[in-house]
Amino acid sequence: MKPHVLQRRGIQLTAETINPKVLDAQYAIRGALVLRAMQHERNLKESVRMPFDEIIYCNIGNPQQLNQKPITFFRQVLALMDYPDLVEMPKAKKLFPEDAIERARMFFSNIPGGTGAYSESQGIRLVREHVAEYISKRDNLVASADDIFLTDGVSQGVNMSMNVLIRNEKDGILIPIPQYPLYTATISLNGGRAVGYFLKEEKGWSMDLGELDRAYQEAKNQGTNIRAMVVINPGNPTGQCLTEANIREVVKFCEHNNLVILADEVYQTPIYGETPFTSFRKVVTDMGSSVELISYHSVSKGMIGECGRRGGYMELRNIDTVVREQIYKLVSIGLCSNIAGQMMVDLMVKPPQEGEPSFALYQEEMNNLQESLTRRAHKLSTALNAMDNISCNAIEGALYAFPKIDIPYKAVQAAKDSGMTPDTFYCVELLDATGICVVPGSGFRQKKGSFHFRTTFLPSEEKMDIVIEKLQKFNKTFDTIYR
Amino acid sequence: MKPHVLQRRGIQLTAETINPKVLDAQYAIRGALVLRAMQHERNLKESVRMPFDEIIYCNIGNPQQLNQKPITFFRQVLALMDYPDLVEMPKAKKLFPEDAIERARMFFSNIPGGTGAYSESQGIRLVREHVAEYISKRDNLVASADDIFLTDGVSQGVNMSMNVLIRNEKDGILIPIPQYPLYTATISLNGGRAVGYFLKEEKGWSMDLGELDRAYQEAKNQGTNIRAMVVINPGNPTGQCLTEANIREVVKFCEHNNLVILADEVYQTPIYGETPFTSFRKVVTDMGSSVELISYHSVSKGMIGECGRRGGYMELRNIDTVVREQIYKLVSIGLCSNIAGQMMVDLMVKPPQEGEPSFALYQEEMNNLQESLTRRAHKLSTALNAMDNISCNAIEGALYAFPKIDIPYKAVQAAKDSGMTPDTFYCVELLDATGICVVPGSGFRQKKGSFHFRTTFLPSEEKMDIVIEKLQKFNKTFDTIYR
Repeated sequence: MKPHVLQRRGIQLTAETINPKVLDAQYAIRGALVLRAMQHERNLKESVRMPFDEIIYCNIGNPQQLNQKPITFFRQVLALMDYPDLVEMPKAKKLFPEDAIERARMFFSNIPGGTGAYSESQGIRLVREHVAEYISKRDNLVASADDIFLTDGVSQGVNMSMNVLIRNEKDGILIPIPQYPLYTATISLNGGRAVGYFLKEEKGWSMDLGELDRAYQEAKNQGTNIRAMVVINPGNPTGQCLTEANIREVVKFCEHNNLVILADEVYQTPIYGETPFTSFRKVVTDMGSSVELISYHSVSKGMIGECGRRGGYMELRNIDTVVREQIYKLVSIGLCSNIAGQMMVDLMVKPPQEGEPSFALYQEEMNNLQESLTRRAHKLSTALNAMDNISCNAIEGALYAFPKIDIPYKAVQAAKDSGMTPDTFYCVELLDATGICVVPGSGFRQKKGSFHFRTTFLPSEEKMDIVIEKLQKFNKTFDTIYR
Repeated sequence: MKPHVLQRRGIQLTAETINPKVLDAQYAIRGALVLRAMQHERNLKESVRMPFDEIIYCNIGNPQQLNQKPITFFRQVLALMDYPDLVEMPKAKKLFPEDAIERARMFFSNIPGGTGAYSESQGIRLVREHVAEYISKRDNLVASADDIFLTDGVSQGVNMSMNVLIRNEKDGILIPIPQYPLYTATISLNGGRAVGYFLKEEKGWSMDLGELDRAYQEAKNQGTNIRAMVVINPGNPTGQCLTEANIREVVKFCEHNNLVILADEVYQTPIYGETPFTSFRKVVTDMGSSVELISYHSVSKGMIGECGRRGGYMELRNIDTVVREQIYKLVSIGLCSNIAGQMMVDLMVKPPQEGEPSFALYQEEMNNLQESLTRRAHKLSTALNAMDNISCNAIEGALYAFPKIDIPYKAVQAAKDSGMTPDTFYCVELLDATGICVVPGSGFRQKKGSFHFRTTFLPSEEKMDIVIEKLQKFNKTFDTIYR
């Protein structure tokens, strides 16, 4: 029987009829420039002649994509969890150390169904207890498993927080400028207002109380109900590490203005400079403050770079019980975060301990990573500052440099003619000339008239030397042509 | 220095000031009854005397929690992916079959960074190609990897679809009653209206055109812009399998009213009855229809029950290019779905093939599962129908029975006195008397004055016999007391 073909009456979903909040959301890290890089890569594969042999992706904090080796113990435990029969096979002892097998056994006896079953909505209790122990030890303060929610990466936790906070288009969230674009994107999606406060570039991207006050008052005068403030420490894309004194001022400001603090602390390790990482939680608690605080951490960052796992947690502090129950309901609608990601959170916060068989290898791997990242951070910022038209604050933490480029007037004009912002123009030229993919500063927002780009230093040390060399050469040529 | 303690000025986030859309959302599957069951379980652990020895969770489709064994080949490949060093260890050949090692190698050569790196936002291209092959083979029609988005379970895909569809409180989505509560929850969270259409219980929970039209017209008359229709096939909680003729009518209805079809097909396997599974995609394509369609599938269901992985996909059909780009942006904000979940999707759609070393074991495991679930489904529906005050449609697919209970007037009164709906009262009494945890029909919505509950048949066959026996005994006592 031939089917009867009906006329199409119209389309329900078009650019005009889609939810406008979705249209409004911006996300540059995987935007047009990356698609252009991927096109170049396809050209290279098809032997099209290009001025470079490969694309070097410095646009995203995705260490293992660039061959950072995972921590051996973590992956041994995950493998055992994924294939439960292994744990009891005598031959497995020849491939897996005793403590990895022991850890897997402990998980199995605590987690019905292992990695294949939904866990309780908030996350596996045992994992949350280990997170609480980690926080307690880090901050020398008591933390509780009841305050921990395990999430599919931090993106989910942030989106959930915005969902709870934003009621309508008058609700505003203070965010740093420059920012990680997850914040403007999730605020747009939830229909609120992103209210930017500028980080003080000339003072190492610190937070300035006068500027916080200006941003707050201006938005308030425009009828915005400011509900919360996002802080990213160590900074993304800016790489600074806030001092305890600075954090203390910020907490007082939020307390005074009755703002919830959303503390993105996914880069709490590694640290490259003199300023140690201090958690907002520690400062809030030490001050005896009752300010509402949600802190986030992730296995994607914090050195181990397990991005593909989508594991993370958030901790609630001074959050009303009813609100907590509502957050519980939100996570239960999505059932639970993925279990292998939860396991990875557990391994991150409870790695092998001294005296255990895997401790030496674990420590060696972590130390090598920390030392190598430190070398790369210093080398990169030094090289950037040696360029006449570029300046870059010290990289104290995180995985990025956010240098300022002095773009010549003629280049600004050329960008205008091509319908691009000047920083995008610079980054496109860089990509086309060298194959290096970075993100224009406008993707993170920046002070008007200033131009930046964000680059990671995640390629291997040998490759970072090449990146630096190519960048120097390109930058000199660019400046010569347009100056 | 002693910190200066500031007075708390107020709380920003309370029940009164939280986003009311969050407050409105309902999700019963992990609601009050489950918390009560968990409390009973803690009591048992502390040796409190209860009328039962254990809690039997029949509230959620979470097979591996109830000891369903995972498919061996799938887990072997995942373990190799998690611990890449294994692939090259000669000893690994004694623990892993050749085709599992081969599969892992193939993944590694296609996926930079393996399970530890973010993939492209839409999901790994190779996995999407395999999904497209699976769909093509299933429906005997061409599918394309470009139309596939890999997601963290189906919950994320559905929420994203609602996010794109719902602009304001006038936008409505047609949903089946009874429904899986993910739909009402995500519609609430996105601020839209859930417009219920009743499935015809007396005709095996089929979809009735007259009823669809009634629901549509009534909502339209109340000023609702109906944008889409949710279909769940095979049904959750209702277990029916729609005939191709019925699907064809529904497609015509959606075409006529210009509605996007959201087809939840996560239970496409297993099938227990005579009616085969037919995808909406196949019918839409066979009809030459241009109706907009988003279909969902998941590794959590479809027999293998890998719930903890949070792996799933959605396929777009006849969706406008600009809208597809917006969906791409949405997934890119969350970076990507977890990679082990993506791998599991790959394994589900491309299991071992005839002639490969793991084929025999794979087939044996899948057949055993299919046969055992079929036996349990038939046994359960037969037992339910043998009870005087209970009737239950044939279970043709999915993992649930949704029997109708004739609750006596005195029990309805007793429920009222306890501040519960009659079906909740029945389920609480069942839990307290037997330790069996099911979900009241009101959690899924049901016709006014009719009462149901949803139960899985996922406990082992021996345990299902106990469940049935206990349920019969309880039901008889309940009916005797209140009749």
